[in-house]
Amino acid sequence: MLILSPSILAADFTKLGEQIEETISAGAGYIHLDVMDGMFVPQISFGMPVIETIRKCTDKVFDVHLMIEDPGRYIEAFAKTGADIITVHAEACRHLDRVIQQIKAAGVKAGVALNPATPLSALDYVLDELDMVLIMTVNPGFGGQKLIPYCLEKVHDLRLLMKERGLDIDIQVDGGIKASNAKEVVEAGANVLVGGSAVFSGDITANTKAFMDVFAEFENK
Amino acid sequence: MLILSPSILAADFTKLGEQIEETISAGAGYIHLDVMDGMFVPQISFGMPVIETIRKCTDKVFDVHLMIEDPGRYIEAFAKTGADIITVHAEACRHLDRVIQQIKAAGVKAGVALNPATPLSALDYVLDELDMVLIMTVNPGFGGQKLIPYCLEKVHDLRLLMKERGLDIDIQVDGGIKASNAKEVVEAGANVLVGGSAVFSGDITANTKAFMDVFAEFENK
Amino acid sequence: MLILSPSILAADFTKLGEQIEETISAGAGYIHLDVMDGMFVPQISFGMPVIETIRKCTDKVFDVHLMIEDPGRYIEAFAKTGADIITVHAEACRHLDRVIQQIKAAGVKAGVALNPATPLSALDYVLDELDMVLIMTVNPGFGGQKLIPYCLEKVHDLRLLMKERGLDIDIQVDGGIKASNAKEVVEAGANVLVGGSAVFSGDITANTKAFMDVFAEFENK
Amino acid sequence: MLILSPSILAADFTKLGEQIEETISAGAGYIHLDVMDGMFVPQISFGMPVIETIRKCTDKVFDVHLMIEDPGRYIEAFAKTGADIITVHAEACRHLDRVIQQIKAAGVKAGVALNPATPLSALDYVLDELDMVLIMTVNPGFGGQKLIPYCLEKVHDLRLLMKERGLDIDIQVDGGIKASNAKEVVEAGANVLVGGSAVFSGDITANTKAFMDVFAEFENK
Amino acid sequence: MLILSPSILAADFTKLGEQIEETISAGAGYIHLDVMDGMFVPQISFGMPVIETIRKCTDKVFDVHLMIEDPGRYIEAFAKTGADIITVHAEACRHLDRVIQQIKAAGVKAGVALNPATPLSALDYVLDELDMVLIMTVNPGFGGQKLIPYCLEKVHDLRLLMKERGLDIDIQVDGGIKASNAKEVVEAGANVLVGGSAVFSGDITANTKAFMDVFAEFENK
Amino acid sequence: MLILSPSILAADFTKLGEQIEETISAGAGYIHLDVMDGMFVPQISFGMPVIETIRKCTDKVFDVHLMIEDPGRYIEAFAKTGADIITVHAEACRHLDRVIQQIKAAGVKAGVALNPATPLSALDYVLDELDMVLIMTVNPGFGGQKLIPYCLEKVHDLRLLMKERGLDIDIQVDGGIKASNAKEVVEAGANVLVGGSAVFSGDITANTKAFMDVFAEFENK
Repeated sequence: MLILSPSILAADFTKLGEQIEETISAGAGYIHLDVMDGMFVPQISFGMPVIETIRKCTDKVFDVHLMIEDPGRYIEAFAKTGADIITVHAEACRHLDRVIQQIKAAGVKAGVALNPATPLSALDYVLDELDMVLIMTVNPGFGGQKLIPYCLEKVHDLRLLMKERGLDIDIQVDGGIKASNAKEVVEAGANVLVGGSAVFSGDITANTKAFMDVFAEFENK
Repeated sequence: MLILSPSILAADFTKLGEQIEETISAGAGYIHLDVMDGMFVPQISFGMPVIETIRKCTDKVFDVHLMIEDPGRYIEAFAKTGADIITVHAEACRHLDRVIQQIKAAGVKAGVALNPATPLSALDYVLDELDMVLIMTVNPGFGGQKLIPYCLEKVHDLRLLMKERGLDIDIQVDGGIKASNAKEVVEAGANVLVGGSAVFSGDITANTKAFMDVFAEFENK
Repeated sequence: MLILSPSILAADFTKLGEQIEETISAGAGYIHLDVMDGMFVPQISFGMPVIETIRKCTDKVFDVHLMIEDPGRYIEAFAKTGADIITVHAEACRHLDRVIQQIKAAGVKAGVALNPATPLSALDYVLDELDMVLIMTVNPGFGGQKLIPYCLEKVHDLRLLMKERGLDIDIQVDGGIKASNAKEVVEAGANVLVGGSAVFSGDITANTKAFMDVFAEFENK
Repeated sequence: MLILSPSILAADFTKLGEQIEETISAGAGYIHLDVMDGMFVPQISFGMPVIETIRKCTDKVFDVHLMIEDPGRYIEAFAKTGADIITVHAEACRHLDRVIQQIKAAGVKAGVALNPATPLSALDYVLDELDMVLIMTVNPGFGGQKLIPYCLEKVHDLRLLMKERGLDIDIQVDGGIKASNAKEVVEAGANVLVGGSAVFSGDITANTKAFMDVFAEFENK
Repeated sequence: MLILSPSILAADFTKLGEQIEETISAGAGYIHLDVMDGMFVPQISFGMPVIETIRKCTDKVFDVHLMIEDPGRYIEAFAKTGADIITVHAEACRHLDRVIQQIKAAGVKAGVALNPATPLSALDYVLDELDMVLIMTVNPGFGGQKLIPYCLEKVHDLRLLMKERGLDIDIQVDGGIKASNAKEVVEAGANVLVGGSAVFSGDITANTKAFMDVFAEFENK
Repeated sequence: MLILSPSILAADFTKLGEQIEETISAGAGYIHLDVMDGMFVPQISFGMPVIETIRKCTDKVFDVHLMIEDPGRYIEAFAKTGADIITVHAEACRHLDRVIQQIKAAGVKAGVALNPATPLSALDYVLDELDMVLIMTVNPGFGGQKLIPYCLEKVHDLRLLMKERGLDIDIQVDGGIKASNAKEVVEAGANVLVGGSAVFSGDITANTKAFMDVFAEFENK
């Protein structure tokens, strides 16, 4: 199933509830929440108290992406904010299996994110434990970037690897995704697409529907 | 001059604009913005993009309190969000004078915060460079705490020290401050009071006015 | 050769000499010493002075497992305590080859340990330099865990890889190992088994012999 | 009251129970437990599981000295081992007041230790919260050192400071303390003396009694 | 093309200009500049101001090897010193793709270095982005080491991998390289050889020519 | 005695020997060597191999200023380069007394440096152990700064404190020092002046003599 997960980091925080509702009405499946701590990435976005508040606006799937150092420290706290999926970076975890176990023990779905340069071998033994893999298509936390083409090769390689292993878990992509490249991204093998300004800049409904149109092409095949 | 600086961390993020307006109408002088990175303190609150958004709601003084490691890395970024005062923790700065200079060079007023156990000697040589000192009255980033009584002694000692040096800069207090202890806090020497749930829990107007009433007593003396 | 390496962390420290002697009499081949620093893993166990003391009790092989940050700092110190094998974590070493060289230069056998999620590619170029590989079968330093099944696949993959390269070095497993799963573990390819409470809880002699019985089955084949 | 707190780091770990009993019989009042993590100090000694074991041997006061980074992470764990006093280093705590509160909340007495070069101003605002101050008389974790004479001046200054404030809490000294300098140390103002090899090297009973003789002189005054 | 890149760390700093000129006259193609920060490697060599100065002596290719933590912080600064190639360690970069992009954005060629134990999988997705790969043939920053034989296998594997991908970028080797093993090194697949004392100890011209002679053999083939 | 200690960081590295000789001939008493690691300060200058080389040019006092993290790791290495004085930052040392002891044990004079904001209380107990105190008059490692006026008050306070204690050790100042403010600096209490561009920009002899002229005024009093 193809899913759009709009990143509220690109939304207008003064009318967040409204904007979230608009993209959901137009077809968005998840809400993507980018937590940045200024240490793992060079930006501080928002954390527990903000997510907790937004949780009251909607009961859509909350897809929380932790761009933070040593995320094992805060799994329980983010689970309590109402996260449905928690994704941690392989590069930030000394004890990655342990963090995945923590997420699951909290009753939340577990994802692992890989920076552009990180090889798929990071997932050699934990792939079967996951509900989602997030292939970063830009370097997280740095502004104004375009999708890095070789990251779609990684998506492709991962989808193949999953097929070989008989797995069919979600592959999410994040960074530089637009309706105009969504087709290419889905063809590479991704099925959960994070959109930032491509969703929230301008007409949210039209933007969201542009993604839905691309998705419809695939689903009608 | 006595000033109330309500901390929006205790507000309802879904109607932030409205709540900020309400406390301002009732007399709040500053808006206190608690930035926490999950490293200096065990909580991640919010950062640049959230402040930037809130900046659009009001032109009141933005009093930004950075509870983050090595704040020198992000002074320029927070200045760009529209901060009027930036306060950094002495415990988080290797080159404290440098960070104060960075804040001023960005055209922003400079504050330094001290954790409860930190001695005033940390300010021996920089006190004259500052626009504000923030004396923490609880340990920052840990929930549900009461005002630590000995921190009011520190406020008192600092006010005395300033008098000896002929200084009259702001002393801010943060943590466990309520209308019911505001008198004691002001008598100790503080003049900028941060209120969290004491402002935003329940009737914001009434809560804010309760502080204004205490302030009025002093100003009519 | 199949070897049981009882971890004294599960023993009674007030009668350590006695308990070590008992498991050795019953067939234990090594003594496993779990050094934890509270930084690499969330537990502080013991270090040099404790090992030095225990060294006086027995001349069995001391199999020292360093679950510590940047172990290169302390190789010489642990060699002096009388270690026969020193195992370091790949995840804790920036200069892994250097640390292996340090261990060997100290006249000690060198092992490398891998956390559950760590891929075998970490050993691509150093495998030939090693005397032992430790495949963690739980996340080190976290209490009360069961053997993670996919870690036995890793043992299996490693044994295959060694065969391809014509290597026959020791594969140690640590975490959740009991007499009841020892057969499965050995079949996967491990030959040095660390036992904790499976050795020291209850009747040490009987517990040790239960492992010896499993080993005997294989050796009589 | 004058108290000897023998540090078991200098004892023979193979007959710890026996040696502890011997020094207690001869007059030792506390048992000093030196926890070192190889990060705050360049030595790894022992941690929770070792203390838990020793706890079974005796019900004397366990005086646990944490020479570890960021001790707030492990206060609860050390409290559970049966510690009666937990002492943390001011240099290792970002939020010193918070750690003191954690220790007390766990029902344990709270101490703060100062390295030789650390000024007493570190205690300016927390002195009244403490049950004990530990003035290090050597640099912790480095071997074979003699008592640093200027540290006795610090003991003296601290005792004076306490008198001025009407406080009468314990002052502990640790490092290079022997029966031969005990008089000088007590005259400086210390009342809890940590002895290492001065207690456990050679005749434990005689060594302990040598301290008791010095103490008796003072108490008979 | 085969290139010798003499490392000035082995030169006489009091007559650096002269010695650089001598090796260039004799055939050296690049000048290798080893920047060490005492954190990533246990040695502090030199940084921006020294390179800037040397830049005035020659217009040869400056091949700057950053053995420093988190090199992304200083890419711009090193680019300004006049570097032509900047090589960073994969082990030191959380956001490796980002750092490569930074180097290129500064108009400099980008290299990535791998420590002896680091697998080639670290380059799985960034190989095509690079101008050079540096295969360390000793552990960087530790003195008096010999070339580690298995590192030549890595050079060989990398050259094969490049051929498979249709790439023909430079492979540099650094550590224990001499005229006497240059043939073997080139046969393994390297084409840029760093020489330290093998160039600057004794007769620089003769030393340099010894490398040129080996190179000539290959180029005449 | 008044001493000028020219910092070679401002010299021309291609003719270092010559420039050092020139300032010495004109009256410079020490040679100041600024070691920066890019971690304690945001610049990497030079380290052991560069100092070792310069050592061959002159036998003047080498006054080595370590602006590096945890300098205890490298005291022995810098002592071997031929340092006569080693100065470490109080802010960079967990075990400051230990580092001072290390420097002295290596047969080198010991200095401690304080950043502008660091209070003199950092020296409360170690002042008597020192051969020199370095009062930074700018923030170390940041370019293009002017002398911070309040730092001269700190020099003044320190000289008074020393008099009270009957001490007469060197007070060095570093940052923004020129012949034109040298008088003021010496009057504040400093007697070792570090000059950077004030010595090496333009006519080195004239620049050096300008300092000597100021010194002569004082010495003729």
